[in-house]
Amino acid sequence: MSVRVAIMGATGAVGTELLKILDERKFPVGELRLLASKRSAGTTLEFKGEKITVQELTHDSFAGIDLVLASAGGSISAEFAPSAVKAGAVVVDNTSKFRMTEGVPLVVPEVNPEKIFEHKGIIANPNCSTIIMNLPIWPLHKLFGVKRIHAVTYQAASGAGARAMEELKQETRAVLDGTPFQPSVIPHPYAFNVFPHNAPWIESLGYNEEEMKMVNETKKIFGDPSIRVHATCVRVPVLRAHSEALNVEFSRDISVEEAYEVLRTAPGVEILEDREKNRWPMPLDASGKDPVLVGRIRKDISQPNTLDFWVVGDQIRKGAALNAIQIAEKLFA
Amino acid sequence: MSVRVAIMGATGAVGTELLKILDERKFPVGELRLLASKRSAGTTLEFKGEKITVQELTHDSFAGIDLVLASAGGSISAEFAPSAVKAGAVVVDNTSKFRMTEGVPLVVPEVNPEKIFEHKGIIANPNCSTIIMNLPIWPLHKLFGVKRIHAVTYQAASGAGARAMEELKQETRAVLDGTPFQPSVIPHPYAFNVFPHNAPWIESLGYNEEEMKMVNETKKIFGDPSIRVHATCVRVPVLRAHSEALNVEFSRDISVEEAYEVLRTAPGVEILEDREKNRWPMPLDASGKDPVLVGRIRKDISQPNTLDFWVVGDQIRKGAALNAIQIAEKLFA
Repeated sequence: MSVRVAIMGATGAVGTELLKILDERKFPVGELRLLASKRSAGTTLEFKGEKITVQELTHDSFAGIDLVLASAGGSISAEFAPSAVKAGAVVVDNTSKFRMTEGVPLVVPEVNPEKIFEHKGIIANPNCSTIIMNLPIWPLHKLFGVKRIHAVTYQAASGAGARAMEELKQETRAVLDGTPFQPSVIPHPYAFNVFPHNAPWIESLGYNEEEMKMVNETKKIFGDPSIRVHATCVRVPVLRAHSEALNVEFSRDISVEEAYEVLRTAPGVEILEDREKNRWPMPLDASGKDPVLVGRIRKDISQPNTLDFWVVGDQIRKGAALNAIQIAEKLFA
Repeated sequence: MSVRVAIMGATGAVGTELLKILDERKFPVGELRLLASKRSAGTTLEFKGEKITVQELTHDSFAGIDLVLASAGGSISAEFAPSAVKAGAVVVDNTSKFRMTEGVPLVVPEVNPEKIFEHKGIIANPNCSTIIMNLPIWPLHKLFGVKRIHAVTYQAASGAGARAMEELKQETRAVLDGTPFQPSVIPHPYAFNVFPHNAPWIESLGYNEEEMKMVNETKKIFGDPSIRVHATCVRVPVLRAHSEALNVEFSRDISVEEAYEVLRTAPGVEILEDREKNRWPMPLDASGKDPVLVGRIRKDISQPNTLDFWVVGDQIRKGAALNAIQIAEKLFA
C-alpha cells in the first residue's frame, strides 16, 4: 500500500520536519505534493535525495491525494481543508482551527488513538504544549485520577516558526555586538529576555489563547471535562524545545516511586535524570528527539496528593510533526 | 552623622552594585573599606569619583567600622561575621548563612522593618527570589490572608555572580559562531537552554536549596509558619532580573481589581503593563531598576479564591544590594 501525501506549508519549520520524519519512519509515501504560498512556489525541497518543486496551494491542489498534512496557519486550513476533504483526502491539521470543533477528533496517539477513526475528513493535531503535557500525565490520570493540573511553561522560539528561530539568533548576536536590532516576527525583545506568551490575550478571561489551548484541549483529549487545568505560558530564549513545570493534584495518594514506575514504561515518555548530579531534562537534550523527557518528580510539600514533574519535549517533533505522522500511520495502517 | 562602612566581597556583582547604590541614595558614608579575597586585593574600585584600593579580608579588617555589608559567600560570612560583630560593627549579611538562625532578623524593609532593631549584631538579607516574591504578596496577605503560594521562577545568570553573567555571554557567542565552549561557572549548557536551578538538591525533600529558601524564608519574614509555600526554581538565559509566575490561594474571595488596587500603592512595587498591547513586565524592563514590577493579575479558573501574578525584579538591586542598604538606612536613621 502507498499513500499519496500533500503537505500544506511545506517550507515552514514543521513542514520541513514532516519531510524528515516521513523518511525516517519509512511512511509509505506514494506521491508527495509540496504546497505553499505563491511566495514560496517554485523553490525546491529534498525528500529521499530527490528534489521536489514546491507548488502554489490552490483549491485544486488535492486531486488524487489521500492524506494532507496541514501546517500553514489557521486561516489557510480554514480555507483549504474543506477542498481537500471534498477531493477525498483526510486532513491531519496542525493548526488550532478545528481542534475544538464538535465532531473533529483531537488526537494524541498515545492517549486517544480510537478517536482517529471517528473522523469526517479532518483530524486535529493538538497544540504543542498540550501534547508535551498530556503524554506523561495521561497514564497517571488513568491510575490515580487527576483533579487539577497547573502547568507553567518555558516555550521556545520554534513555536512561532522558522523565522522566529532565525530572528532570535540574529537579535542575540546584535545584543552581544551592541548593535541595534528591530525584530519583525516576535513583538518583544527576545534575546536574554522572557515574556508571557504573545498569543492573543483574552480580556474576559485574563488568559492568553496559548493557555486556553492547554486548558480546553486537555479536557477534550482526556475525554473528561471535570479535570481542572490552569496554565501560565511564557516564552524563553530557547530555539526549539519546550519545558514545562507541572504541578498535579491527584484524587488519591500517589508516591514519587509510583509515578516513576508508571512513567518508566509509558509510551512516548523517557525518564532522563541523574539525581546525584542534580541533572534533569533540558531543552538541549530534547531537541531533535522523539520522546518527551520527564524527571525531577517530587512531592509538593504544600498540599496532599500532589506531585511536581519537570517535562521537556521537542516542539517541532512530538509537539507537531511527529504527532501528526503518528496519527497518519494509524489511519493508514 | 556618618557611618563607617566595610564591604565584604566588594568586587562581585552585588559588591559593585552596593557601591553604586550607596552613592545614588546618598548614604552617609564616613569611611569606606573595601574587602575581598587575597586574589582581588590591590585592585581599585571607584566610589564618588575616588579610587579606593581593595584590601584583603582578615579577622582584623573591622576595627572602627559601624556597618559591614557582606556578600562574599556563606562560608566567608560564617568565618568573618563574628569578628566584625566582636569589633562592634553590625553586619547586614547577603548570604544564606544566618538567615534561618534563631534570633537573627531576616528582613525585607517593606514587610518586617521592626525586626531590624532586634538584631544581636547580624541582620540577614533574604534570598533574591524570596524578596521579589514577598514584596507584592505581603500587602495582599495582610488584607486577604494567603493560604498557599506556588512560585515558579525564571532566574537570571546574575544570581550566580558576575562571572556567570560573563560566561553566559561568551557561551552564547560561541554557540552562534559554532565554536566549542567549556563552561566553568555554571554546570550545564546555558546558552539557548533552561534547567532546574543548580543549587544543591536535597534528596530527602526532592527540592533544591533555592526552592527551600523561598519556602522557609517567606514563613519567617511573614512571621507566619502556617502559610503553605511551594517553589519550582529554574534558570533561564537572562542576564540580571528574575521573573516569577506566582499562583496564590487566599483565605477569602479576592477580585483582580482589588489586587490591583492594593498593589498600586504598595511600597517597592510598580504595576507595569499594557493590557491592550498584551505587554507585561519583562526582565529587560526591571534590569537596573528599584521597584519589583507586577502585572498580568488574573483569576485562576481552576480553583476558587486564587489569583496569578507575573512578577519581575532586578536580582542584584532589590534582590540583594538595594534591600541590604534599605536595612542599613533604617538602622542608622
